[in-house]
Amino acid sequence: MRVAGKEMRTIWPSPDRRAVLAIDQRALPGRLEIARLEGVEAVAHAIRDMLVRGAPLIGVAAAYGLALAAARDPSDAALDAARALLGATRPTAVNLRWALDRVGAALANVPPVRRAEAAFAEADAIAEDDVRMCRQIGEHALPLLRARKGEGPLRVMTHCNAGWLATVDWGTALAPVYLLHRAGVEVHVWVSETRPRNQGHLTAWELAGEGVPHTLIVDNAAGHLIARGEVDAVIVGSDRTTAAGDVANKVGTYLKALAARAHGVPFYVALPSSSIDFRVTRGAEIPIEQRDGREVGAGVGVAVQNPAFDVTPAHLVSALITERGVCAASAEGLAALFGRAA
Amino acid sequence: MRVAGKEMRTIWPSPDRRAVLAIDQRALPGRLEIARLEGVEAVAHAIRDMLVRGAPLIGVAAAYGLALAAARDPSDAALDAARALLGATRPTAVNLRWALDRVGAALANVPPVRRAEAAFAEADAIAEDDVRMCRQIGEHALPLLRARKGEGPLRVMTHCNAGWLATVDWGTALAPVYLLHRAGVEVHVWVSETRPRNQGHLTAWELAGEGVPHTLIVDNAAGHLIARGEVDAVIVGSDRTTAAGDVANKVGTYLKALAARAHGVPFYVALPSSSIDFRVTRGAEIPIEQRDGREVGAGVGVAVQNPAFDVTPAHLVSALITERGVCAASAEGLAALFGRAA
Repeated sequence: MRVAGKEMRTIWPSPDRRAVLAIDQRALPGRLEIARLEGVEAVAHAIRDMLVRGAPLIGVAAAYGLALAAARDPSDAALDAARALLGATRPTAVNLRWALDRVGAALANVPPVRRAEAAFAEADAIAEDDVRMCRQIGEHALPLLRARKGEGPLRVMTHCNAGWLATVDWGTALAPVYLLHRAGVEVHVWVSETRPRNQGHLTAWELAGEGVPHTLIVDNAAGHLIARGEVDAVIVGSDRTTAAGDVANKVGTYLKALAARAHGVPFYVALPSSSIDFRVTRGAEIPIEQRDGREVGAGVGVAVQNPAFDVTPAHLVSALITERGVCAASAEGLAALFGRAA
Repeated sequence: MRVAGKEMRTIWPSPDRRAVLAIDQRALPGRLEIARLEGVEAVAHAIRDMLVRGAPLIGVAAAYGLALAAARDPSDAALDAARALLGATRPTAVNLRWALDRVGAALANVPPVRRAEAAFAEADAIAEDDVRMCRQIGEHALPLLRARKGEGPLRVMTHCNAGWLATVDWGTALAPVYLLHRAGVEVHVWVSETRPRNQGHLTAWELAGEGVPHTLIVDNAAGHLIARGEVDAVIVGSDRTTAAGDVANKVGTYLKALAARAHGVPFYVALPSSSIDFRVTRGAEIPIEQRDGREVGAGVGVAVQNPAFDVTPAHLVSALITERGVCAASAEGLAALFGRAA
């Protein structure tokens, strides 16, 4: 999407395939810096330290990380070690494992000497698929959001950053917002700052780049705005959604879902199918990453608990919006869309 | 309560009655600074700028501010101007107006030459009443909280700061916590940081002073902890409660109430009767202060909306805990306790 009028993506391989280049999201919204990641260790560190973040993007980054590993040492042992390293970076987003499995499958019958090339080709394909899927998610979400528009601008609330910075391009939850805006439909986004890491500032930054009107709020203000009738729809992304439609997403999502339900505001979850974990049914089974308490910024000696995600139960989700289409957040809904049982 | 082992209050008049001394809460938790407020303008500024904060405390501060005004110029015109100045500082907490009315009533038949003395006497009485009422609130809350205790520590969640820093001493929501702790009952407090002004850090600071175990969390984490069964009771204060039991309190309170209800966790509101506005029934009628967007700390040019309070509807409140006792959050409950109709 656009940054200061110029089209960009979040991640791409260097022309010589010796490195992966990515926007350093830790420096945003203050500075646009491009990081050059020259090996699998650098990619793993970038995922863990949230230089790249967002479930779809960390999947793509991990795929490129495995390709870099294959370029250095294509032996089975080296690739197994690289997969283990990348797979252990962050526990909640299932896209990470999905992308590693996909690259792994692509290398299954490839001799070592061809593995680097095959891994890069698969990583490129995962990145291109991500762009296409995000755009499709946006298109499937359009009629749902349009239906909520009253006389003024369509007032969308989101949480965290599920925009293009969380993917390769377009985003998940924000893809329909960009499509609406480009189609000339008036839209306004309530952006929650998303403590403790303030990814809302990333969302504000990317909305500004595309010229989409938006207002920043503290996470605490979501209930007030929804109760006062200031929100037409809530739409968020997901780090992992179960086969029954329970949604793990950035901590605080669940509180917005409760408020939306209390006031009859639809609560949509936009996600690529790579975020669905068909092996898990109950949201309570999803591992919730506990991050360093220093992210919260307490004084010395103050105990902190810092869960990075929470689970919104399926019954609070108005619909799941995927690249295949829209379905109910339920085992039946997902089975109908994806043709597989939970 | 205790600060580094020494007993303190939040506010007191100087011995010569030429000033009011108060803990500067803007400097906490980093530094303990005592501000000397030498006139009504200084007190009004202290309230507006949140040097003093918390509904009960700003009532007491306003009463002392009016006394300082009377000491300088006890004419009706000067006192009317002082009341107008103080009354306009913050719109949501009703204690402010209550305290000004109470001092005004105490001066009704007092000749100008005696007004300063009478106003200080009434302000002192309001401060002493506040201490007594907070302690009574704590005592009335005790059995409700004790009933929730399981095998481990009683796990209490609060929001913002409704501790002794929000009052003259003891606090409202935290009064029972201090009583339990002093009685040797194991208690642990989940402290929400309370964006945008981070009053949770004040709560952590005062709990540390009393030696009460506590853990700081981001506001977003409340739903996750409640859903995972980590919270036995939620207890908060109130800036204004209507005659029907709707509760205005720090923004974000409503989200905690929704989560508590969703998981069968009691949600208690602790408040002195001076926080009840019997002239208002519907929470939607309570004016919600919109504070400067710069409090949120957005980048240059980013639009911000910053409501300071939200309204929790009575049906989500398990009980109101006042100095008179406990009642249902309803017109009937309040009428039974206070003997007046809505």
